Amino acid sequence: MSFATTPEPPYYAVIFASTLTGEDLAGYAKTAARMLELAQQQDGYLGEDSAREDIGITVSYWRDLAAIKAWKQQLDHAQAREQGREKWYCGYSLRIAKVGHAYSWER
Amino acid sequence: MSFATTPEPPYYAVIFASTLTGEDLAGYAKTAARMLELAQQQDGYLGEDSAREDIGITVSYWRDLAAIKAWKQQLDHAQAREQGREKWYCGYSLRIAKVGHAYSWER
Repeated sequence: MSFATTPEPPYYAVIFASTLTGEDLAGYAKTAARMLELAQQQDGYLGEDSAREDIGITVSYWRDLAAIKAWKQQLDHAQAREQGREKWYCGYSLRIAKVGHAYSWER
Repeated sequence: MSFATTPEPPYYAVIFASTLTGEDLAGYAKTAARMLELAQQQDGYLGEDSAREDIGITVSYWRDLAAIKAWKQQLDHAQAREQGREKWYCGYSLRIAKVGHAYSWER
């Protein structure tokens, strides 16, 4: 497993944390996979890292705020969010942050 | 399970993603718990969200860059990082980002 590889900062991060109701997990997984596929096709998408344990965290990286806004307004994505609030999510938090410094290390 | 609750932006996020070697997982877990305890005692610490699946992601929140720097230099934390590179981590990435917008939703 490897990490998102991103260009030199500055760029932007969308930090999304969520808890699931447990309802319709198959539908959730299918939609999540489809959303990743669609995000990857968006202009300005740079990559993402994701993990779920008690909570799920997805951090996606974007060239600029305009690219984040365009993804927010993408129609299938907006519909998926709506479904998420209806059945999949207990709750979520979303933060938009400007990455100013990045460092990575590998063995 | 609930999320980090943070004040109104602006504040800072440290986005840490890692993969483990699998060596000494008990020692890793013990040190990780101790580091969380110590971070919580640092001036300017605001909270964190964490999950591990294929990769681990910890996003910690801080009042300002000075608080992040002070935590980086905290002696026990520096020693833990050293141990991490010696045995626990396959690799990691670390990003420092300024949170400008935050939103949360709960059922």
